[in-house]
Amino acid sequence: MSFKKLSASIEKHGANLCIGLDPVPEKIPEFLFEYEDAVLEFNTRIIEATKDAVCAYKLNAAFYESLGEKGWSTFGETVARIPDDVYVIADCKRSDIGNSARHYAQTFFDYFDVDAVTVNPYMGFDSLEPFINYSNKDIFSLVVTSNPGARDFQMCDVGGKKLFELVLEKLHEWNKLGNIGAVVGATKGEELVGIRSRFPDLSLLIPGIGTQGGSIETVAAVVRIPGAPIIVNVSRDIIFAGFDEKFADKVKEKASYYNAILS
Amino acid sequence: MSFKKLSASIEKHGANLCIGLDPVPEKIPEFLFEYEDAVLEFNTRIIEATKDAVCAYKLNAAFYESLGEKGWSTFGETVARIPDDVYVIADCKRSDIGNSARHYAQTFFDYFDVDAVTVNPYMGFDSLEPFINYSNKDIFSLVVTSNPGARDFQMCDVGGKKLFELVLEKLHEWNKLGNIGAVVGATKGEELVGIRSRFPDLSLLIPGIGTQGGSIETVAAVVRIPGAPIIVNVSRDIIFAGFDEKFADKVKEKASYYNAILS
Repeated sequence: MSFKKLSASIEKHGANLCIGLDPVPEKIPEFLFEYEDAVLEFNTRIIEATKDAVCAYKLNAAFYESLGEKGWSTFGETVARIPDDVYVIADCKRSDIGNSARHYAQTFFDYFDVDAVTVNPYMGFDSLEPFINYSNKDIFSLVVTSNPGARDFQMCDVGGKKLFELVLEKLHEWNKLGNIGAVVGATKGEELVGIRSRFPDLSLLIPGIGTQGGSIETVAAVVRIPGAPIIVNVSRDIIFAGFDEKFADKVKEKASYYNAILS
Repeated sequence: MSFKKLSASIEKHGANLCIGLDPVPEKIPEFLFEYEDAVLEFNTRIIEATKDAVCAYKLNAAFYESLGEKGWSTFGETVARIPDDVYVIADCKRSDIGNSARHYAQTFFDYFDVDAVTVNPYMGFDSLEPFINYSNKDIFSLVVTSNPGARDFQMCDVGGKKLFELVLEKLHEWNKLGNIGAVVGATKGEELVGIRSRFPDLSLLIPGIGTQGGSIETVAAVVRIPGAPIIVNVSRDIIFAGFDEKFADKVKEKASYYNAILS
């Protein structure tokens, strides 16, 4: 059964909250730069403070790549410091033809051994297939994203439905192993309720709460609709909650705040 | 003026050919493993053998990421070994919301200092904007890809046109700085001619020749239609042309073969 680890983590920790570990060196508390790898230290302290209050951590690859080679080492070290019973998502939004996609799948599923990746569906089935074929891993495909540009293509009318609805139908059709989920931005509240009701078999990863302005109340209502497990991600509003030596306490408080509303 | 370096490189080397440096350790000549970094040595010898016969090199990030941290070091070292007058593309097909996309742009344009990246348009304008804003760099957005899955979404009817045509119209509209190009697979011969004729202002990156089976004759005809510079990429069929100590000679021969047809 897929999403098994995720379901277990949600149950054990009593939380649908995922924290996005998207570190930006300029926003990390200054005292951490005494350590050899300030970003790793930052992540480690957040994990220590919140590991019992989340179902998952999501690492956006952009924030590690931009640090060069060392960033990839920090990415791997961070994954290694997440407890085994917490789900780990590499938010990399990859897409490529089958031969190249296989190498991306190897990167995240074999080399870094994360539980799930995010992918971009524009290139169609065979660009997702190498990821889907890992039956013990999960994928979350972009469907409706939280940014303004979502309207440029995702909202287009495609024969009486929106493009993102066609993407959902295809994901549903391709979900033979039950390991496919959808990324639906919290800023798209109306679509969220409809998607959850129509495709309860698709696990949902919902970003866009906090800094991006999505309504947490709408998201909380969606979480209560039965179906495959749901992950609600918050990044900046939690990880940059404090800037002094006690920042991890503030991070923990913010995580509790979100958990209280979501539960 | 954008695509300036590309135009100069095409003119200087008399070639529209781009070689895809997509190394796979299992396919690299065995004797190269005597070197500390066999992949780098492989790339270096290909560059040495073909640098006067190409307008560009394209490095698909998937093949470096899957080698872990060391792969990123090899990526950077390879870029550094490409002569200054040859154009360099990071084929990374990235896409993310603005804040994250900025970090991807930093990775490839600042850290690795390549001339262009490939991007995925599904998330719309603001996901491409951080890349476009580098006025001295170029982007190639996916439009019609060379894989079978291209039909799943790219070919959908969106109000009387295909989705990929809408993407082209938007790219054309967003091309204020003249630094936007389109990726159109060589396996889509019919679309290629139409796209080139209708949007001559968009530079084209055409992959899919060789192993993927696109018609080189059709591509050669498209290259002759006037407009923004065109790059024709071949990866596997050139870089894996030989497996012994003289593999670089075979690589050079294969490059000449393609150049003769394309010119």
